[in-house]
Amino acid sequence: MFEFSIGATSGPARTGTLTLPHGAVETPVFMPVGTQGSVRALSPNDLRSAGATLVLANTYHLHVRPGEQVVEKLGALHRFMAWDRPLLTDSGGFQVFSLEGSRRVDDGGVEFQSHVDGSRRRLTPERATEIQWTLGADIAMAFDHVVPGGADEATARDALDRTMRWLERCRTRHAELTASHDYQTLWPILQGGAHLELRTEGLRRILDLGDWTGLAIGGLSVGEPKAVMYDTLERLEPKLPAGPRYLMGVGFPEDLVAAVERGVDLFDCVAPTRNGRNGSAFTPDGPVSIRNAEHREDPRPLDPSCDCETCTTFSRGYLRHLFMAEELLGLRLLSLHNVRYLIRLAEAMRAAIRRNAFGPWAAEWRRRYLHTGSA
Amino acid sequence: MFEFSIGATSGPARTGTLTLPHGAVETPVFMPVGTQGSVRALSPNDLRSAGATLVLANTYHLHVRPGEQVVEKLGALHRFMAWDRPLLTDSGGFQVFSLEGSRRVDDGGVEFQSHVDGSRRRLTPERATEIQWTLGADIAMAFDHVVPGGADEATARDALDRTMRWLERCRTRHAELTASHDYQTLWPILQGGAHLELRTEGLRRILDLGDWTGLAIGGLSVGEPKAVMYDTLERLEPKLPAGPRYLMGVGFPEDLVAAVERGVDLFDCVAPTRNGRNGSAFTPDGPVSIRNAEHREDPRPLDPSCDCETCTTFSRGYLRHLFMAEELLGLRLLSLHNVRYLIRLAEAMRAAIRRNAFGPWAAEWRRRYLHTGSA
Repeated sequence: MFEFSIGATSGPARTGTLTLPHGAVETPVFMPVGTQGSVRALSPNDLRSAGATLVLANTYHLHVRPGEQVVEKLGALHRFMAWDRPLLTDSGGFQVFSLEGSRRVDDGGVEFQSHVDGSRRRLTPERATEIQWTLGADIAMAFDHVVPGGADEATARDALDRTMRWLERCRTRHAELTASHDYQTLWPILQGGAHLELRTEGLRRILDLGDWTGLAIGGLSVGEPKAVMYDTLERLEPKLPAGPRYLMGVGFPEDLVAAVERGVDLFDCVAPTRNGRNGSAFTPDGPVSIRNAEHREDPRPLDPSCDCETCTTFSRGYLRHLFMAEELLGLRLLSLHNVRYLIRLAEAMRAAIRRNAFGPWAAEWRRRYLHTGSA
Repeated sequence: MFEFSIGATSGPARTGTLTLPHGAVETPVFMPVGTQGSVRALSPNDLRSAGATLVLANTYHLHVRPGEQVVEKLGALHRFMAWDRPLLTDSGGFQVFSLEGSRRVDDGGVEFQSHVDGSRRRLTPERATEIQWTLGADIAMAFDHVVPGGADEATARDALDRTMRWLERCRTRHAELTASHDYQTLWPILQGGAHLELRTEGLRRILDLGDWTGLAIGGLSVGEPKAVMYDTLERLEPKLPAGPRYLMGVGFPEDLVAAVERGVDLFDCVAPTRNGRNGSAFTPDGPVSIRNAEHREDPRPLDPSCDCETCTTFSRGYLRHLFMAEELLGLRLLSLHNVRYLIRLAEAMRAAIRRNAFGPWAAEWRRRYLHTGSA
């Protein structure tokens, strides 16, 4: 039910097949983010046409609105959002710690204010696990304490220790819930900020708790310099178990390439949809701002090498017009393209790994995307 | 190239086939409105899936942004908006007379301020005709002087006289433009406000100018009581030529049924998309406000009899969630359903006419849609 088999490797980069109750996922894979049970501006048909196999939804958002009981009454998350392929739910930890306004953390859990109606609410490891079970995603995430990218070692250690204690409680509750129906797996989240020794200790403690079907690396891409993220991944990689590795909240095309190069398999990020709604499109030659006047009369597609509906149907000039005229269709067309771009990027990386040529492929990709001269 | 053949009749109601350069259109037909070259929130694929055969775009809007020269450089309107089926462009008259801000009408044309950049601009019958020729729709409309629904007879007569003088100029300019390429036809617009004698006179004067491939009735559904519109249509109908009759800016389901009953063939209106974006959906049992709390846990589709993507895929509970959570997908799904609803309504009317049973069908339809008790 929850298997991962590694296919080809090229240095630390590897391809794999992750088998989940709702289907198989080829890795490396990019997960579009459906925060509130909808990948913004995109329909399930759009996501299928973009080649999405795994979609993320947010426990915090669905808990505060419409509430997991409503989702359950409407047939649980897959039926609710009409997505019949695999789903992963974030635990709510990241959202709760990102919220504006008052928030109180103790060892029991976190008290916070709903961003929807201001009501006081409490999430605990047990509640976060129960909510995710009710939502019914294929993969649930453990409830974690996230600290900002620049947190000092004492703060990061405190959060790591708490995350580890919470992980045991999530695991216990999840085992109770899944005792009779084994259709969801739970993944731990490794924290530790930018402190490698904490990351190493955290990883050891996670593995001491037993076997996991996958493991997430959290608390990166939260404000620290990119070099720190790349370095952390590089140093962790030899110590990671063979199972799937999910780098949370990443990302941008250059980060996906760098992380796959360092042995990461799964990614999620709102960048393709958020940037798309802002009129910024990923292309093999780097990002394009569609509002720029240069596109006014440009009959060419956004990305001639792309097979998405946006690129095979519309000109840059028309897409620019949609943004200048504030037409809703523009938001959707650029979101669709950006999601397809990252999914195609993952496909291209899998192909390069299978040829055992990830290094040269990545150098060539960077030369073009980052305009960094010869490789 | 521009033929209309009447199929079945049932009283004044009739079916027909309107042949245009970009394809054939079965009538009665509802045209979705793509004001700025995009039917709001919908893609060409959505429109095809909804069964749209003819789409309207607005000359005024495309003239002020991006400008007809830009559209021309991007391959003219069909290519620009990636719609390969028939298109109709409104002349800009209605928009210019609906604009806020200063506007000066003389016999030459109208001077107005662009709503985009405030620049002073001038539209004349010749310019409106030239812009539409540049855009390249299958059907162009004559430039008209529109008055509010409650205009007195002197005002309405003045506007009618001007519209008639402008019609001759549009016709002359259009004949010059189409001399070598006959891929666009021009339709006159009958004005006259709520004054039947003016309408009758206007119709006579239009027909005195010669043959037309179709005729539009403008200046209705602009604030006058609905009974006035229905009465005007009823009195005009016996005097109308056999060609296609287009009732501009209508509308709502009950208006479509009433107008087909009075011999009208074509309709356009922003209601399905605008109402859809406001969370209001047409159903056979009348409009549904999807935000209402009663839909919170409702697993049923919006309209179980509908074959659109929205109704075959999503629950009312999920659609309500999308609106409460301000997800863009909600705007699109309700817009899509409403457009499909009106297109299916036109299909149902064609079927009833072919059975020569329009009256009983309309009575039964009203009983259900308007909850008016027994027919």
